Amino acid sequence: MTAAVAARAPALRRYAILAPGLFASRSAKTAHGVIAYARDRTVAVIDPSRAGERVCDAVPYLRSDAPIVRDLDQALRYQPTALLIGVAPAGGALPPAWRAAILQALDANLEVVSGLHEVLGEDAEFAAAARRGGGSIWDVRVPPPPRLFTSKANDVAAHVALFVGSDCAVGKMTAALELTAAARARGRRAEFVATGQTGIMIAGRGIAIDRVIADFASGAVEQLVLESAPDAEILFVEGQGGINHAAFAPVTLALLYGCAPDALILVHLVTREHIEDFGTPVLPLAQLVILYERLCETVKPAKVCGIALNTHGLDDAQARRAIDEARKQTGLPCDDVVRYGADAFYEAIVPALAHKGVPLR
Amino acid sequence: MTAAVAARAPALRRYAILAPGLFASRSAKTAHGVIAYARDRTVAVIDPSRAGERVCDAVPYLRSDAPIVRDLDQALRYQPTALLIGVAPAGGALPPAWRAAILQALDANLEVVSGLHEVLGEDAEFAAAARRGGGSIWDVRVPPPPRLFTSKANDVAAHVALFVGSDCAVGKMTAALELTAAARARGRRAEFVATGQTGIMIAGRGIAIDRVIADFASGAVEQLVLESAPDAEILFVEGQGGINHAAFAPVTLALLYGCAPDALILVHLVTREHIEDFGTPVLPLAQLVILYERLCETVKPAKVCGIALNTHGLDDAQARRAIDEARKQTGLPCDDVVRYGADAFYEAIVPALAHKGVPLR
Repeated sequence: MTAAVAARAPALRRYAILAPGLFASRSAKTAHGVIAYARDRTVAVIDPSRAGERVCDAVPYLRSDAPIVRDLDQALRYQPTALLIGVAPAGGALPPAWRAAILQALDANLEVVSGLHEVLGEDAEFAAAARRGGGSIWDVRVPPPPRLFTSKANDVAAHVALFVGSDCAVGKMTAALELTAAARARGRRAEFVATGQTGIMIAGRGIAIDRVIADFASGAVEQLVLESAPDAEILFVEGQGGINHAAFAPVTLALLYGCAPDALILVHLVTREHIEDFGTPVLPLAQLVILYERLCETVKPAKVCGIALNTHGLDDAQARRAIDEARKQTGLPCDDVVRYGADAFYEAIVPALAHKGVPLR
Repeated sequence: MTAAVAARAPALRRYAILAPGLFASRSAKTAHGVIAYARDRTVAVIDPSRAGERVCDAVPYLRSDAPIVRDLDQALRYQPTALLIGVAPAGGALPPAWRAAILQALDANLEVVSGLHEVLGEDAEFAAAARRGGGSIWDVRVPPPPRLFTSKANDVAAHVALFVGSDCAVGKMTAALELTAAARARGRRAEFVATGQTGIMIAGRGIAIDRVIADFASGAVEQLVLESAPDAEILFVEGQGGINHAAFAPVTLALLYGCAPDALILVHLVTREHIEDFGTPVLPLAQLVILYERLCETVKPAKVCGIALNTHGLDDAQARRAIDEARKQTGLPCDDVVRYGADAFYEAIVPALAHKGVPLR
């Protein structure tokens, strides 16, 4: 078991991604994120329900032509160095049907990379297979030792921009990655700060805040911000959950207070009308802006500087209408940074990325 | 190590309470709470800085005349059956200076009861002493296995009243205990639901929500509410932290959403002007009412039905003025349930303890 804050491994991995029956579904967002954004390369995906297709056949927006195969035996033909668990089941426990592939990977000298709540490194059978076959396990969700919040996050030299959402799985991580790339393309020393399992797999470092003991969750966020790239000019902090998500809002609030943000970027999936897990309504954008800002105001004031809309599933005309509508409702810069690229949105929000009253430019 | 949800032990304990150098300070709130409210009896307090005094000399509002002694040797003269760690240091780690007393207690066949984050039951030296001497360890903060929030808390038959605060350590637990007693005195089947280490020691059951992994904190609160006294008419749920406390607000929010309250009772220490740990301002009462209600509204609406003021440190005239002032500011029933008893406040708020629109009386 490797600590989740471990530095990026020097050699690139060659991933076989395990996503049986689910690769084309949204449940496989870990798989999709790693294929789209990680430095490490995906050489095969394991999903018997799509075997024979390529990645881009099953998930068109991923421009990878890696093969989808039936099982690990077939995947081994593509010389993977690691097996990545590509699906995050609710609750984070390991589905029993996946044990065989993990055992086989450890027996075949692969690294198993997992973002499950269940710690694979504590499983005696896996440990035995790893010893036998030379494999290893990276449980990316295992957090570092607990630390209380101290307020030192207020003194970070970089501009801290936190992504907040209208629900889980609306595109917060993707928006953060796209904005980081746009800032870097302009020569800014921008850093993506990973706070969830997929983000950590992509960045090679981070802390899964949802896995930290509640008392120390804000402290873990603070630690991340203090230790992330001390020479960065902008930290784009990956968001989690949503402030009215009954199960995950405590993690959302830990991020909101723990990283002491200078600005917020709200992320919303325009087709999402209800909090997916519970059916309670998604709040109107203007109300979300007020709620997040009110909460920040009580600790360290920060404003929402723009809204990254996810228009997935709409056609171009519908997407543009949704973006205009959001602009009218909130008076804020709004855009879809995946559909239309992040450049225009970055230019629109960068004057608001102020730190201690000093705008970035 | 005993699970924190274990049922109330049948035999009463005789506590020696460990609070070296701190018994008269607010850091010893665990000690004070157990002496004031627990079924178990305190036979001695260990604090060399006050040795020779009685409990009521050092902390006048505690009506116990148990002796304060220098060390465990002296405490053993009063035949304790358990050693209770009576101080909660920030961060929850065991101060090294306390190890000797714990080892001696385990060697002397005592039960050691601890609410520290640090799990004493996992300490090899303590385990060896327990085996040697017959002692045992109850780590009250160790939570049950993780469960995700499901929304089933919405269907609890009892009226659920949650205590929320303007900061940590303002009197939320005390107010909940006093209201529970007042309701019971009126023949109501009322239950105190413990969510922190002192409350658990007092009630003999509960879950320390601050010790639960952030993703499962709301779920743990829900579990508590579902399993607490299925035949109760009113559940008074102990609050934690404060919504603008940068470190502990995630726990506050887990309680706010996880117990699906029908009503909130706001608790405020009138002399507290700044969040103790960070120096950020305590919010005005009216603003706290709005913030807590706004958050509830987004998941399950609940109103603040009254404000339990803690006027500790004021004289009678000042206390009455503070209560009048709070009433004027908020239009809500306000009282100090310790100074003036909980009866009048209970009568004032009980019509608002509605469940699914049905008032309790």
